[in-house]
Amino acid sequence: MESEITVAIVEEASREWKEYSKCDVVIVGAGPSGLTAGKYLAERGYKTLIFERRLSFGGGIGGGGMLFHKIVVEKDVANILQEFGITYTERGDLLVCDAAELMAKLATGCIDAGAKIIHGITVDDVIFREDPLRITGVCIQWSAVELSGLHVDPIFVESRAVIDATGHDAEVISVATRKVPIDLIVPGERSAYSEVAEKELIEKTGMIVKGLYATGMAVAAVHNLPRMGPIFGGMLVSGKKVAEIVAQDLSKDR
Amino acid sequence: MESEITVAIVEEASREWKEYSKCDVVIVGAGPSGLTAGKYLAERGYKTLIFERRLSFGGGIGGGGMLFHKIVVEKDVANILQEFGITYTERGDLLVCDAAELMAKLATGCIDAGAKIIHGITVDDVIFREDPLRITGVCIQWSAVELSGLHVDPIFVESRAVIDATGHDAEVISVATRKVPIDLIVPGERSAYSEVAEKELIEKTGMIVKGLYATGMAVAAVHNLPRMGPIFGGMLVSGKKVAEIVAQDLSKDR
Amino acid sequence: MESEITVAIVEEASREWKEYSKCDVVIVGAGPSGLTAGKYLAERGYKTLIFERRLSFGGGIGGGGMLFHKIVVEKDVANILQEFGITYTERGDLLVCDAAELMAKLATGCIDAGAKIIHGITVDDVIFREDPLRITGVCIQWSAVELSGLHVDPIFVESRAVIDATGHDAEVISVATRKVPIDLIVPGERSAYSEVAEKELIEKTGMIVKGLYATGMAVAAVHNLPRMGPIFGGMLVSGKKVAEIVAQDLSKDR
Amino acid sequence: MESEITVAIVEEASREWKEYSKCDVVIVGAGPSGLTAGKYLAERGYKTLIFERRLSFGGGIGGGGMLFHKIVVEKDVANILQEFGITYTERGDLLVCDAAELMAKLATGCIDAGAKIIHGITVDDVIFREDPLRITGVCIQWSAVELSGLHVDPIFVESRAVIDATGHDAEVISVATRKVPIDLIVPGERSAYSEVAEKELIEKTGMIVKGLYATGMAVAAVHNLPRMGPIFGGMLVSGKKVAEIVAQDLSKDR
Amino acid sequence: MESEITVAIVEEASREWKEYSKCDVVIVGAGPSGLTAGKYLAERGYKTLIFERRLSFGGGIGGGGMLFHKIVVEKDVANILQEFGITYTERGDLLVCDAAELMAKLATGCIDAGAKIIHGITVDDVIFREDPLRITGVCIQWSAVELSGLHVDPIFVESRAVIDATGHDAEVISVATRKVPIDLIVPGERSAYSEVAEKELIEKTGMIVKGLYATGMAVAAVHNLPRMGPIFGGMLVSGKKVAEIVAQDLSKDR
Amino acid sequence: MESEITVAIVEEASREWKEYSKCDVVIVGAGPSGLTAGKYLAERGYKTLIFERRLSFGGGIGGGGMLFHKIVVEKDVANILQEFGITYTERGDLLVCDAAELMAKLATGCIDAGAKIIHGITVDDVIFREDPLRITGVCIQWSAVELSGLHVDPIFVESRAVIDATGHDAEVISVATRKVPIDLIVPGERSAYSEVAEKELIEKTGMIVKGLYATGMAVAAVHNLPRMGPIFGGMLVSGKKVAEIVAQDLSKDR
Amino acid sequence: MESEITVAIVEEASREWKEYSKCDVVIVGAGPSGLTAGKYLAERGYKTLIFERRLSFGGGIGGGGMLFHKIVVEKDVANILQEFGITYTERGDLLVCDAAELMAKLATGCIDAGAKIIHGITVDDVIFREDPLRITGVCIQWSAVELSGLHVDPIFVESRAVIDATGHDAEVISVATRKVPIDLIVPGERSAYSEVAEKELIEKTGMIVKGLYATGMAVAAVHNLPRMGPIFGGMLVSGKKVAEIVAQDLSKDR
Amino acid sequence: MESEITVAIVEEASREWKEYSKCDVVIVGAGPSGLTAGKYLAERGYKTLIFERRLSFGGGIGGGGMLFHKIVVEKDVANILQEFGITYTERGDLLVCDAAELMAKLATGCIDAGAKIIHGITVDDVIFREDPLRITGVCIQWSAVELSGLHVDPIFVESRAVIDATGHDAEVISVATRKVPIDLIVPGERSAYSEVAEKELIEKTGMIVKGLYATGMAVAAVHNLPRMGPIFGGMLVSGKKVAEIVAQDLSKDR
Repeated sequence: MESEITVAIVEEASREWKEYSKCDVVIVGAGPSGLTAGKYLAERGYKTLIFERRLSFGGGIGGGGMLFHKIVVEKDVANILQEFGITYTERGDLLVCDAAELMAKLATGCIDAGAKIIHGITVDDVIFREDPLRITGVCIQWSAVELSGLHVDPIFVESRAVIDATGHDAEVISVATRKVPIDLIVPGERSAYSEVAEKELIEKTGMIVKGLYATGMAVAAVHNLPRMGPIFGGMLVSGKKVAEIVAQDLSKDR
Repeated sequence: MESEITVAIVEEASREWKEYSKCDVVIVGAGPSGLTAGKYLAERGYKTLIFERRLSFGGGIGGGGMLFHKIVVEKDVANILQEFGITYTERGDLLVCDAAELMAKLATGCIDAGAKIIHGITVDDVIFREDPLRITGVCIQWSAVELSGLHVDPIFVESRAVIDATGHDAEVISVATRKVPIDLIVPGERSAYSEVAEKELIEKTGMIVKGLYATGMAVAAVHNLPRMGPIFGGMLVSGKKVAEIVAQDLSKDR
Repeated sequence: MESEITVAIVEEASREWKEYSKCDVVIVGAGPSGLTAGKYLAERGYKTLIFERRLSFGGGIGGGGMLFHKIVVEKDVANILQEFGITYTERGDLLVCDAAELMAKLATGCIDAGAKIIHGITVDDVIFREDPLRITGVCIQWSAVELSGLHVDPIFVESRAVIDATGHDAEVISVATRKVPIDLIVPGERSAYSEVAEKELIEKTGMIVKGLYATGMAVAAVHNLPRMGPIFGGMLVSGKKVAEIVAQDLSKDR
Repeated sequence: MESEITVAIVEEASREWKEYSKCDVVIVGAGPSGLTAGKYLAERGYKTLIFERRLSFGGGIGGGGMLFHKIVVEKDVANILQEFGITYTERGDLLVCDAAELMAKLATGCIDAGAKIIHGITVDDVIFREDPLRITGVCIQWSAVELSGLHVDPIFVESRAVIDATGHDAEVISVATRKVPIDLIVPGERSAYSEVAEKELIEKTGMIVKGLYATGMAVAAVHNLPRMGPIFGGMLVSGKKVAEIVAQDLSKDR
Repeated sequence: MESEITVAIVEEASREWKEYSKCDVVIVGAGPSGLTAGKYLAERGYKTLIFERRLSFGGGIGGGGMLFHKIVVEKDVANILQEFGITYTERGDLLVCDAAELMAKLATGCIDAGAKIIHGITVDDVIFREDPLRITGVCIQWSAVELSGLHVDPIFVESRAVIDATGHDAEVISVATRKVPIDLIVPGERSAYSEVAEKELIEKTGMIVKGLYATGMAVAAVHNLPRMGPIFGGMLVSGKKVAEIVAQDLSKDR
Repeated sequence: MESEITVAIVEEASREWKEYSKCDVVIVGAGPSGLTAGKYLAERGYKTLIFERRLSFGGGIGGGGMLFHKIVVEKDVANILQEFGITYTERGDLLVCDAAELMAKLATGCIDAGAKIIHGITVDDVIFREDPLRITGVCIQWSAVELSGLHVDPIFVESRAVIDATGHDAEVISVATRKVPIDLIVPGERSAYSEVAEKELIEKTGMIVKGLYATGMAVAAVHNLPRMGPIFGGMLVSGKKVAEIVAQDLSKDR
Repeated sequence: MESEITVAIVEEASREWKEYSKCDVVIVGAGPSGLTAGKYLAERGYKTLIFERRLSFGGGIGGGGMLFHKIVVEKDVANILQEFGITYTERGDLLVCDAAELMAKLATGCIDAGAKIIHGITVDDVIFREDPLRITGVCIQWSAVELSGLHVDPIFVESRAVIDATGHDAEVISVATRKVPIDLIVPGERSAYSEVAEKELIEKTGMIVKGLYATGMAVAAVHNLPRMGPIFGGMLVSGKKVAEIVAQDLSKDR
Repeated sequence: MESEITVAIVEEASREWKEYSKCDVVIVGAGPSGLTAGKYLAERGYKTLIFERRLSFGGGIGGGGMLFHKIVVEKDVANILQEFGITYTERGDLLVCDAAELMAKLATGCIDAGAKIIHGITVDDVIFREDPLRITGVCIQWSAVELSGLHVDPIFVESRAVIDATGHDAEVISVATRKVPIDLIVPGERSAYSEVAEKELIEKTGMIVKGLYATGMAVAAVHNLPRMGPIFGGMLVSGKKVAEIVAQDLSKDR
């Protein structure tokens, strides 16, 4: 029976690896903005693949605010919470959610919409083309290989759009600014100013270079916006907004 | 605005810490068996609290089988998958699930049933009483403290039942065998024999000592059963079974 | 009884967390200058909160001079020692104190004056406002989280003044120069020249930008002053002086 | 001026090293029980030397209960708190103290009574004599040397009594059971049972072998008592009790 | 083009993973004895799969003797060297080979004979059956996962024979003695006695329990033989001998 | 017998160390391009010495593509594969090789052509002469010394040509640009663009400064070319090309 | 010129490696007892080789007593100090030496007497023969290899006597008790009792099994003697005594 | 007796600490150039103190050339070798010494001339004065403290001259260029060119800024000279030369 288990697992997984070697959208990072973007892109019918470095979901959600297991969003994000079926408590202009529930339901909502999530994968570079300059996919590696320090070549996934949802480090955009001639530096986020941060982060969400988009805290890193702390509404709205922008761009290219 | 965020988070979280300082059931570990047990206990109306050492869900699910992102269960577990809304592909006697979906939906199902999950908490000891010997709760610590090597005292949560769903190491039961006079050693699991492992694991699921129960791979560790590899049906059935046993025991004590 | 202990601790601590989510002064670092500043600010009635990264007091005091358990101050600091009840031996122009006594009594004096000290907290960023640029509080994190490498969002404490008493690294000012547009670089301290160092350090103690102040070795780091070694008089005088400056500035804003 | 600082520090410190190369009592560990014992022994006029491994005071006090900055003691310990000038809040049978205040004032009280505390020293072995077997002092090393992994010989301090106040590990007693023919094993503490733990810990405080005494959690480790969590009354009472026992034994030997 | 590379690699590799999920012989370790055994088994037509923990060949060959890049074998092993096309220099009764050449040609000879080698795979357990007790395959994991400390389930490879060629630690046999009820302990090798070691190692090469065989230094570990140092003739002869024994046993079972 | 083994090994190895203290070509790195260059240089009769940092062959070959054990080359590299006796499968314009076979046969082919490979040696600097500036050899160290952090002086090997085949880091050229006045910076490789990468890498293979040459991924690092992933044809062609260029340059100098 | 340096160094060193592949005495450890033994054996004309794990002399001498740079010996060791030309100060029954001088002159005296010292070599095993059981040499490895974690075979040095002068761990004797059937366990040293320790250590110095001898703290480890701290007279006397015993035994075998 | 040992060691060591708190010359580093300089300065009657970071002598000597235990010097350095009583073998223009002997006798010669060496001390900064800028001493710390990561203040030693003999890193000069306004950068050494390196190193030996001198490889680091490998003649000549220069400068100041 053991070898049948092996064959079942290898066959199903490698079938999907081949199927997804080319897709519409690759989202890097299964945190709040990545999962939100995944849901709204998959709902529109785009073949959407999310790579997550860790073997789990949620980015910084699980630690709540300084390990207190609650997350805050602003009142006008209630509709997104509702679309994911996430409960909340009202406190003035703030909605308080449970960290565990937020994390679980963002993932479930994203998967139910049809997005594919693969864990344990680190995106360590992009694929590019010139004239005009554009990003056409990603180089991927097992996170286990990165952690182990072994020297192993990556393989490739091609996609029409790549969304950097890796958070504070804007990892994909950072590597692109170093290794592709994009005329951009990533200054990182500024100190805390929650109110302004939420507003500007949503405004600045969008395309970095043809084929490459920023969402969530990666936007703050690229545009030097203030940080916001354990208030996550901006993440969700930014994820939804990048999904709309990418969808519009992809529909033009068809 | 920033101090309002702090107040909202601290107040909501500390209110729950006080509320849950006494509960019906503490489940240690938010892996497949713990989440399954959580759902079926909460559904029966027990005040159920799950502590998870990491800032995420799923135990070993996220890595699939040797990082191939698929998990296998046996055919007769289809009903549990359906109760959680998890999709699968049939291959002979095996059902193949997506690791990401399994992980997300076990968590969502458990939370929707009313169980409370708190991440980032390590259970490092139990509370006990004598005459007769029984386990009456757990000592908890931030996992961050454990990882940092700082020396900090734990606090307590009292509960009528404690379920060890920590997997291969049976951490709670192990500490109890060393530090409470339970006449038991934890021999650990044996080598692989998938078929037998699944069957015996379900049979042996249950009480270790009054107040303390084993589910999932902790059962294999305690009873020296074979290991089973990336076939998770036994985990789910064991989680459901331990929920039934605990519920029955608690109903007697009322 | 165990759950009552939990409730007592969580309730008292979270009550203070809420009470101190807004305060008059946040001092970062419970070393010699921070504790001295704390005493003189609290005595004047300001709601003063000291965050200390470690689970103890005293900064570099405990190691004396190259582990020899004695600390030296200059003769004219005798009055501050007396206000804290610290004994000393005279040797020419130098007063020699016991490291352990100095450490204990600075803390006791500060607490008895009414300052609140919370251990195990790392300040990892500031809160700011613009037009005019000012610092309005700090982002805080458990030090255990920093040490553990976990990724968790901080929470906030708002305050009318923030004092950087973190020593050689001037951690708060350093983060502010990188992440808030303060036109300043932190060059670090120079080589040793004890006499000049003590004198200039006291002179340069004071405001860096509206809402943010430097005391102790952080002053040396910001103004590129010489280091002074195991002679701590300058620390104490600088702490007292920053307290006076902050008190004056706060009284104007009322 | 710099060489004068060096001479002042080296002279004062080495004078005390010589003075204390023989003393009445060596207490190992400057946590709650060690500091309490130090105060009551020094008050009685015994030449008392406390070695602390770290460069600070307080053992596990600084982390409060799971980092919540409060400590609990039982009502009948109020008198010791008062003797040290420590404030508290009453909650039923429990008194709640601030961790920072408790830590600072235990140290200050101990020093004001005349005990000498030297930080940064690890006791890595004992001195013994035979016929009859007795402990006559300790081998000491800079903690920095221990941490650095360098191989350096210790030096010695002789004393009429050695008190192990090192907490859970009972380090001094443990080394003595391995390296001196004391007929004893150190089983370690048991799981949590706060009420019983407090009571038994005080009862069992006392002599291990001629010249060697246990106080605080070291008592629990030696006598396999339950642990008690962030309730510290037993520590203080045990420290006071061991001081009385040692004083009585030393007075007999005169 | 990049996605075609991905598809080509995934398809070819996963095809072989499925093909080799059941095979005749699994050899663990691509050092001198494992590669020699592989050649002679594959030449006889057995479907032979070698798992090597590292991303390279040769076990301890590459370091020669204390990094001097030469290896010694005894004169009567000349025939095996010749069958692999390895050159040597005669010095009395000793033949001296170049370490690099020995390593490269053992691997080439083994592969040309038809054995399949997969690198970067750690065998972390065996599969077993009872009545009668026998080993029927191995549990495998990416070495990168082991090194990274991630918690991921292994997958399985079933085989009619498993050969432990892991060297001094006899890793496969060691795990089997701990986790399968084989009545055996692995005492490890003894100190050096080259002449006796070579002779006894060859004599003791063979079956440990039905389905599990030892070759090379694993034989010394299991049978407590002396070690031999940088003289590798025994390794090669042992590899050839175990191939003959396994071939004979497998031919009986047909 | 044991001392005879020591004498045989030390004598043979030190004889070669002396013989190769001066040689025609030193190749640094026994990966795909270095081994290929080694074969074609040795075939032409040049005294060729390859230093490999690790105790094994193959550079990044062993990990295949993201641990899938296959390597791809372009169709027109078939002739080099054939010259090394490496088998392959055709898939359109791509040839798929087995990673283990590629690694073993490159090494065997290189050694059979007469090149000497010494493992466990790190090249940590070059030897140079001025007027005109030229590289005349390398400084070498045991890799074990580098890894251990011990401080030990290197020894020297002089050679008429040095080839940097160290891969992505272009280690030899990097050290030369820092420590010899070569007017060059090593910008590193760019993001992925497999097709262009293969073509340009071959074109740019060649001399960096008199006496120093680049091959394989070191070429990409020096000339800021795109990376190519698990497609290794360019490596082999580059290795063959650098051999031809070096041979031509050396023949001129005779 | 650089290759001539290489040839000179390799030739001289490898000549000695061959010359010393068989010798009269191998001393393991160049600390106080090993260097003393080396002097007195070499003076008697025995071919004496000392292996030292580190790249320096002196064992624990360099750290003095708790880093205070002085070492104490008892009055009656004055003659050995004088034979090495080491100066001292008298303090009652104690002689105080400078740590640096003691270290340098022990080495110089040992070398001038004709002993050969090779640094950076770890003895990781012994060579043995049976009927009767005897130790006939050692297995050696570069310490750099040990520290680096690389897996490399040792080479051998045969000798008529092996002296374990490795200090507290008695490394050679410990390995022999585990890997050769010597009927002995190494219990380690006891707590401190300086006077008794010095006396017993000298008495127990001598043969462990035919061919293997203990000196210095290795004697204390084998015979469970008390430790003595920074008083080194016993080391020197023990080194001289073991030299006499070995010389006598070797003279009998001639 | 044990407390007498403590008193003897503390008293003798602290007496010297006070005596040497002001001296003529501080040499940092007890490698070949520092020990040579120490001998020739002490011989001239200057109060000379050498601080060595490690607990041993010799800098890079102990590892010989790539662990081959021999060191080479040029013929014209024979006189210095003879002054230290070091034996050698002639090979053409090169003299070959034994690494162990060279190390031991440099130290012995230096100590016999009257220099004081203290081990285990790291110089982590300098003392300076302005108008004119000059170096007037060093800040020192136990190396154990540096290695342990503890935060402890240094103490001071004042001296009329400081010699940086720390080797490749020129640690003292490097810290001075960063922390004192010396108009200098430390470019580090260049690649290997032994002949030129030896010659230029001796020429450039001398003063860096008033009160601060360079010798040995620190000269190469400051003046960007080529490195020389395991040929140490330049070290010895440079040490002798710096002694002469410092002696001359100090004699002028009298």
